[in-house]
Amino acid sequence: MDKGRILLSVTGFHPQRWHELLSAERDVVTEPAGKDDPSITYAVVWKHKPNLLAGLPNLRAIFSIGAGVDHIFNDPGLPNVPIVKVVADNLTQYMTEYVVWRVLDHHRQGMLYRHQQQKKTWHEPQQRPANDISVGIMGLGTLGRAAASVLLSLGFRVNGWSRSVRPMEGVTTYAGDNGLIPFLNATDILVVLLPLTPTTQGIVNYGLLKELRRRNGLGGAVLINAGRGRLQKDADILRALDDGTLKEASLDVFEVEPLPKTSPLWSHPKVYVTPHAAATSDPNHLVPTMLAQMAAVERGEALQNTVDRAAGY
Amino acid sequence: MDKGRILLSVTGFHPQRWHELLSAERDVVTEPAGKDDPSITYAVVWKHKPNLLAGLPNLRAIFSIGAGVDHIFNDPGLPNVPIVKVVADNLTQYMTEYVVWRVLDHHRQGMLYRHQQQKKTWHEPQQRPANDISVGIMGLGTLGRAAASVLLSLGFRVNGWSRSVRPMEGVTTYAGDNGLIPFLNATDILVVLLPLTPTTQGIVNYGLLKELRRRNGLGGAVLINAGRGRLQKDADILRALDDGTLKEASLDVFEVEPLPKTSPLWSHPKVYVTPHAAATSDPNHLVPTMLAQMAAVERGEALQNTVDRAAGY
Ligand SMILES: NC(=O)c1ccc[n+]([C@@H]2O[C@H](COP(=O)([O-])OP(=O)(O)OC[C@H]3O[C@@H](n4cnc5c(N)ncnc54)[C@H](OP(=O)(O)O)[C@@H]3O)[C@@H](O)[C@H]2O)c1
Ligand SMILES: NC(=O)c1ccc[n+]([C@@H]2O[C@H](COP(=O)([O-])OP(=O)(O)OC[C@H]3O[C@@H](n4cnc5c(N)ncnc54)[C@H](OP(=O)(O)O)[C@@H]3O)[C@@H](O)[C@H]2O)c1
Repeated sequence: MDKGRILLSVTGFHPQRWHELLSAERDVVTEPAGKDDPSITYAVVWKHKPNLLAGLPNLRAIFSIGAGVDHIFNDPGLPNVPIVKVVADNLTQYMTEYVVWRVLDHHRQGMLYRHQQQKKTWHEPQQRPANDISVGIMGLGTLGRAAASVLLSLGFRVNGWSRSVRPMEGVTTYAGDNGLIPFLNATDILVVLLPLTPTTQGIVNYGLLKELRRRNGLGGAVLINAGRGRLQKDADILRALDDGTLKEASLDVFEVEPLPKTSPLWSHPKVYVTPHAAATSDPNHLVPTMLAQMAAVERGEALQNTVDRAAGY
Repeated sequence: MDKGRILLSVTGFHPQRWHELLSAERDVVTEPAGKDDPSITYAVVWKHKPNLLAGLPNLRAIFSIGAGVDHIFNDPGLPNVPIVKVVADNLTQYMTEYVVWRVLDHHRQGMLYRHQQQKKTWHEPQQRPANDISVGIMGLGTLGRAAASVLLSLGFRVNGWSRSVRPMEGVTTYAGDNGLIPFLNATDILVVLLPLTPTTQGIVNYGLLKELRRRNGLGGAVLINAGRGRLQKDADILRALDDGTLKEASLDVFEVEPLPKTSPLWSHPKVYVTPHAAATSDPNHLVPTMLAQMAAVERGEALQNTVDRAAGY
């Protein structure tokens, strides 16, 4: 089987390191020679131009550079070839760090202490132990499960919600539409790690936030979104913060990114903003896996971590 | 054996809940009837008045209300009876939460993101993975070991320093005076969980901080002190922050507590202050253990978790 060329198509950042590492083993181009360039056998993409891949006759698979493949489904002319997701220990660990960091910062009242420090106030507020707090993870996939396991070791109670039933030791699991309300009703701190699909888009809205548990002494529920911005309604989060439904939020993702300077989220005292930086793809870790998968396909083996087109993730 | 009375002697806070819980099973007084009150068999104390316990003829043991017994050794008239330390799962878990929270906040550049948010800056800085960072725990005792285990599960490299050799799986351990410099030289983030003793007092000084590893791209070492304030020299920490030896610090304890309003630590942009709140003793958890130990002594059993007087902890 001819190795052909890799089409590396990226918008939003300069993929220099990806280019270097892929080029070490295969020919790489950043534009096809024509709409029907027969030399291209794989595409490695992040937010590629719509219809770019439609006519390539020998395309065997599309590899996503980032976790989450919603950027690929944005292409109306997406050809019917397998799409490969990112699964990398490195990325999973970064996400676990982010989730545990943000959960602990809310749980340990980081914003309150910062405020007290500014006023030089020495005061110890009531502090609940982790085993009195339930963290609910929406999307109990690769990333959700890894974060759940460290949260358990810190003593938190953990709930998980997924599309299909996903048992996990120590975690109370809920699945599907029927499981959603019970899951939310039992959750103090909500961590969103869903993929963006037609079904999940806009799911984090005011009605959903209203279903979170609000207990005496905790001062409202907490939202942490590290999935995708279009899972949430920015305006609904603001409303929930302002009427006390939510106590605080940590947002890594936003409906529009970069977050516009005009967004009230930037200066909201109860919001902690990070710039879609929870878990970044590292080409040094991911390119070897991609090259290994290409070689495996050429030996006749099956691709790993392919996307379910019907489900959209 | 006569049960006698408990002397509950506390300064700095009102021990109402301790009183209630101890009283449920035994007679409790807050002052002895006289210097040689024969009815008192146990003392339960936090910063008790000096010489208060010296003449009590039937005192069998002193129980500390807080983790750390330095407050007891401050008494020049301390009688020669066993002193019992606090060991409680609950307290250990609180400390693990605190340590993991502060390590992650420094590691994930929490102060930088807060600053960027204030300026509405959308920028993703370089981020190292946890497995590229060594956290060094000074004092690998009950609290240090528990924190180490969660840090390991997050992927951090962990070093530990103790008086005697304390092997722990996954942790690079160092011991005693000879081990200190090698331990510091291999540490990016220093977590202090030592007891305050004549040997450890003032140990966290400028010379020690200078020995921490400073690697390119990390911008200085990090200090987290959740042990005792008099382990550190506040002025030396400021000097180390200001000349770049330290990048940032999280301090839960201070030479003088409450931290005086005049201290420059309050408003230092690289310091995160909490008011000695890392791990608070919860009477609901501790009183039952104390009462159980008193009953055990009366059955002729040995006390658990007693202090080594020569070592001072
Ligand atoms: N902020 C960042 O820096 C960053 C970095 C990496 C990834 N991400 C985001 O994180 C997402 C999750 O990544 P992952 O690797 O954990 O994905 P994954 O392994 O595919 O897991 C996705 C989880 O979401 C569940 N799910 C999907 N659709 C659902 C629905 N309609 N109802 C209920 N549950 C549903 C899945 O249920 P089943 O288990 O039943 O399939 C699964 O548990 C990515 O898609 C990406 O958007 C963000
Ligand atoms: N900020 C807070 O809210 C808070 C709350 C609770 C406790 N604390 C502080 O945390 C301290 C530690 O508690 P713990 O329960 O973990 O105590 P621990 O079990 O007695 O452990 C103390 C550790 O420090 C080591 N150590 C003592 N003296 C040393 C020396 N001269 N050189 C080297 N290592 C030395 C010990 O070494 P060996 O293993 O060889 O004995 C041991 O590893 C307490 O003493 C207290 O001051 C603070």
